[in-house]
Amino acid sequence: MAASNIKQPLLDQLPLNNRNVDPRRRRIRRLKSAPAAELFPGEIDDTKDDQSLLHYESILAKLHPSFRRVILYLSIYLAIGTTCFYFVRNQIQGKKVNGVLDSVYFCVVTMTTVGYGDLVPNSVTAKLLASFFVFSGMALVGMVLSRGADYLVEKQERLLIKALHIRDKVGPSDILEEFETNKVRYKCFVITVTLVVVIVVGTVFLAKVEKLSTIDAFYCVCSTITTLGYGDKSFSTKAGRIFAIFWILTSTLCLAQFFLYVAEFNTERRQKELVKWVLSRRMTNVDLEEADLDNDGVVGAAEFVVYKLKEMGKINQEDVLLLLDEFESLDFDQSGTLSTIDLALAQSS
Amino acid sequence: MAASNIKQPLLDQLPLNNRNVDPRRRRIRRLKSAPAAELFPGEIDDTKDDQSLLHYESILAKLHPSFRRVILYLSIYLAIGTTCFYFVRNQIQGKKVNGVLDSVYFCVVTMTTVGYGDLVPNSVTAKLLASFFVFSGMALVGMVLSRGADYLVEKQERLLIKALHIRDKVGPSDILEEFETNKVRYKCFVITVTLVVVIVVGTVFLAKVEKLSTIDAFYCVCSTITTLGYGDKSFSTKAGRIFAIFWILTSTLCLAQFFLYVAEFNTERRQKELVKWVLSRRMTNVDLEEADLDNDGVVGAAEFVVYKLKEMGKINQEDVLLLLDEFESLDFDQSGTLSTIDLALAQSS
Repeated sequence: MAASNIKQPLLDQLPLNNRNVDPRRRRIRRLKSAPAAELFPGEIDDTKDDQSLLHYESILAKLHPSFRRVILYLSIYLAIGTTCFYFVRNQIQGKKVNGVLDSVYFCVVTMTTVGYGDLVPNSVTAKLLASFFVFSGMALVGMVLSRGADYLVEKQERLLIKALHIRDKVGPSDILEEFETNKVRYKCFVITVTLVVVIVVGTVFLAKVEKLSTIDAFYCVCSTITTLGYGDKSFSTKAGRIFAIFWILTSTLCLAQFFLYVAEFNTERRQKELVKWVLSRRMTNVDLEEADLDNDGVVGAAEFVVYKLKEMGKINQEDVLLLLDEFESLDFDQSGTLSTIDLALAQSS
Repeated sequence: MAASNIKQPLLDQLPLNNRNVDPRRRRIRRLKSAPAAELFPGEIDDTKDDQSLLHYESILAKLHPSFRRVILYLSIYLAIGTTCFYFVRNQIQGKKVNGVLDSVYFCVVTMTTVGYGDLVPNSVTAKLLASFFVFSGMALVGMVLSRGADYLVEKQERLLIKALHIRDKVGPSDILEEFETNKVRYKCFVITVTLVVVIVVGTVFLAKVEKLSTIDAFYCVCSTITTLGYGDKSFSTKAGRIFAIFWILTSTLCLAQFFLYVAEFNTERRQKELVKWVLSRRMTNVDLEEADLDNDGVVGAAEFVVYKLKEMGKINQEDVLLLLDEFESLDFDQSGTLSTIDLALAQSS
């Protein structure tokens, strides 16, 4: 099974950063890839034409479908929530400033689970409505976190990486490479900066507009972004509640996303350690025997890859078994390999 | 590269449920597996000796290390939090019943971000303390969710599957197989049942002990488990607060875990659809060319597996490149395959 017909790799001229490759060791073609399911083409370059920023529709049209869906669901939720709470506004007691504004504010405070308690439902209908909206709100926030927020942070991240490399003459493939390698690190960076900005803006606003002391303003910010919401300090002016609608949504999502990224960062670090360990582990004769899927006594490159991927925990035996079944059903001439002959036989049958 | 030395698969006698295997198509050895990193041996059978349930230490000793760590961190957090809030108890205002009890209660209400507001800090020190404990509490809850709660649910799940199969004579490998296949489905089931129990217990308790109407009790339960915590209804009696300490921790974690599992279930369903699509897609000549890692003109079983795994998005080109590099450095005789000769050369060098 020695690779007798050694060709020069077709795609080797593509730049590969930080990778010292001995040209002698280039028997295996590298950059052939199956369509990577997690990469959406068109996302990388869609920030370059700034003219279109003038047209709101075209921005919305350019957004990722799942992000558009998140915005749609969020709008529907807020519209229905506000309408419902507006109709029962007389069954909600507490500090009020304006009918519609209070309804949106109450809806946001409920869906984010901040729940200050400065406005509380005091009828059976209002209580059941609030209970319903907090559950659906939680589900929606979860969806926003997993799709919308991640998408936004990734866009910022790509801009950041582009900005960092604006002096170097690098192509899109380098940026993509850098992006893929340090993805989680940059994400953590972007979200941390956003979080600090959101905290500072909130504290300054509460101090200036709601006339809180700096400590109280900061305490109210902490109480809000964590969704703790004791409610002793909250937004009680008209301007404050308008600000709160946008700021509470942004800040609570930011902090949740921050925790998600930190967890992702830790997972990735552990995963990298495992990969390192797997790579540094010496192959033994037992490993050779185990990795030899087709029983020809030697381990080919792909067999080695499958064996090590299993060891890293990236794939499991189930995945491999399923694909081996599929492979055998495709292998019409039972040669143990797929060739154009098998494909021709498959089509004729 | 045809598999000329066809051996009878060594491990084929292991039961494989729901898998109609044509014995003719058994050239490839199946159940050879690299040590699966995500499976911890010893977890499956550690519920069988009931005598040890009498000894608390031995239970703790039998628990998974990461679960033990979670319990340890939780205890430390609650101990420090209670001590701190006990020292500043005069700077916390609201309905009080007992010094230590109120401190633990305030600590739990804060760390879970329920934040009723029935007790609120009213000094700079107490406010900053609360802000600190809510952030660290959130991080801790995240850790509990990712390690502790998942571990507990998995244990219940294994018991459930065992109970379901108590009549059939099945071996541990069948249970493991069933467990691996329907993992997320059973997890969702276990957590839903737990959640319903927690909600009913909470509602009954609030109605009986805190003398709330059924609607108010249910409303308070919803307000608590979602961590909304408006605070108009909360635990104000001594018995209520003792109950609250345990119930709030359990119920908020339950609901969060429920949302996590639903998300996991959705992800898995989408993943399965993708796998189905990848399997049903016809191989073309272009695919053959792309999958052929070692350029020998045909696609071996392992090459097919790697190609399809990439298509499914389970692995990416980075992983494969890294492993191909490693493979080439191990392939001392540059034959394109690893054999015992390569291993011997590696040891002598």
